Amino acid sequence: MTEGKAAARLPAALESRRGDVEGALLAILPAEGAEPRDLVAAMRYSVLAGGKRLRPLLFLAGAEFSGPDRLPDDAIEAAAALELLHTYSLIHDDLPCMDDDGLRRGRPTCHVVFGEATALLAGDALQTLGFELLATRPAGDARAARRARAVAWTAEAIGVQGMAGGQALDLAATGAVVPDAERAGLLRRIHSLKTGRLIRLSLELGALHAGADAGRLRDVSRYGEALGLLFQIADDLLDVTQTSATLGKTAGKDSIQDKLTYPVVFGLEGAFRERDLALAAAREAARDLEGDAGLLAGLAAFAAGRDR
Amino acid sequence: MTEGKAAARLPAALESRRGDVEGALLAILPAEGAEPRDLVAAMRYSVLAGGKRLRPLLFLAGAEFSGPDRLPDDAIEAAAALELLHTYSLIHDDLPCMDDDGLRRGRPTCHVVFGEATALLAGDALQTLGFELLATRPAGDARAARRARAVAWTAEAIGVQGMAGGQALDLAATGAVVPDAERAGLLRRIHSLKTGRLIRLSLELGALHAGADAGRLRDVSRYGEALGLLFQIADDLLDVTQTSATLGKTAGKDSIQDKLTYPVVFGLEGAFRERDLALAAAREAARDLEGDAGLLAGLAAFAAGRDR
Repeated sequence: MTEGKAAARLPAALESRRGDVEGALLAILPAEGAEPRDLVAAMRYSVLAGGKRLRPLLFLAGAEFSGPDRLPDDAIEAAAALELLHTYSLIHDDLPCMDDDGLRRGRPTCHVVFGEATALLAGDALQTLGFELLATRPAGDARAARRARAVAWTAEAIGVQGMAGGQALDLAATGAVVPDAERAGLLRRIHSLKTGRLIRLSLELGALHAGADAGRLRDVSRYGEALGLLFQIADDLLDVTQTSATLGKTAGKDSIQDKLTYPVVFGLEGAFRERDLALAAAREAARDLEGDAGLLAGLAAFAAGRDR
Repeated sequence: MTEGKAAARLPAALESRRGDVEGALLAILPAEGAEPRDLVAAMRYSVLAGGKRLRPLLFLAGAEFSGPDRLPDDAIEAAAALELLHTYSLIHDDLPCMDDDGLRRGRPTCHVVFGEATALLAGDALQTLGFELLATRPAGDARAARRARAVAWTAEAIGVQGMAGGQALDLAATGAVVPDAERAGLLRRIHSLKTGRLIRLSLELGALHAGADAGRLRDVSRYGEALGLLFQIADDLLDVTQTSATLGKTAGKDSIQDKLTYPVVFGLEGAFRERDLALAAAREAARDLEGDAGLLAGLAAFAAGRDR
């Protein structure tokens, strides 16, 4: 999406770190022209297509109020791993056998440019590279237990009971007849797994590397859960209220594909109400973490305000 | 392949552990009927399709002569992770946009049974589950550094500079005009990345968890390198000398697809010579590791003997 047109903005303290995230992504991706040439080009094309870098910034936000430890410099490369994992999921979701989408961030999708086989491998290799970074950054023997835990949490969040599972539920639900009484529950479950888990995880990993204790981690998870929901409701609303040019991806796609979304299940006004409930929950969780500091509350406002 | 028809057999000490590997696979896969139903069914279908369980057994073999530590019981689940990663690569390789193969281990391939979208997600989720297991087994804080290292090594072995990279090079080379002087080098590179790296890694991870020192790890890597090459040459030979019924997968596929293989580059007799050179190298490396114990030498004989 184009941030300039959005009503809300990312909090300045996070916005100012986006350049560091871009630098980290350039540092961790294979160099331009490296072998295997097509695969490397496809990975770079999709990762370096712009975007808010939301998940790495959430990692940094999660570290901010959660623990006593200052993040070492190379933690930014662990944060950047989350962008690789997000990009892997986008590349595979866009493939013809999945959502068959030709436009993403205002550009042709990976398989349109590089072919399906290379796009498939680019997604595969980005998942792998994400895990490699989480297993090696931040460096140092003293941090090995946190790194191993980061890999385990991430795998749980993106695997069969997480992001990939949400995608599978979405596939099964698309075009299927879901009884009315089950629609809201199924929708929440799909969204929570498909998008919410990775957003929550990003905050949790920052907290983990900042040395958060169990109580603090619970608060971070609660905030992350609400924030993830907020982003997803807002995304569903964007799909019906914006044009493709503004979105940078195909608009109205959800309804064409008969997807289960908040506007479909709750109606447009109902979806806005759900959005406001999630915003209130995120603000309350933010207060427990940061007091009146405002960074996490600002993030919630950003998530909610993108469609107004 | 059907072991019964092969001239050589897996050493009995390894063969006897195959039941343990099967048990571990059943324990770590999501239960039958669990949600998301199709995705879980597809993962189980492909992983539980039989096969030699070579890579987990190599993990156990790598631990045998390499380090002072006894493997804890749950190390078998880290070993089994290698089978998940191998299966992930097979599912994606078989997809229509890649090798478009309909037969594997004597059964229809994953996408033929479950559709392309679910097969794609099953491969994705198996990669993730593999990393989850390597990050969590063997358990215990004292072993966290080894687990983090296991994840990092594995990511390197299967990523853009490893297995996925080899697949990309293979794609680029298939049907392309490769100058004669470059064919042998390119073939070795593709095979080493596509197949050899994961075989070598399996031995290395066993050695890592057994507490091998740097010198021992080097010896294990040298043996793994030779063994991986041996398996790949033998596989190329099998493709031209066996029928589909014996192989359990489509025979003659390499030549139909104009793939770069040992028989294509060196001729049939030349390929057998290359195979014998790799066997000699593996035997020599085995002697450095096990003396006259014979397990690793037996493995090499098994790898080489399958086609005679």
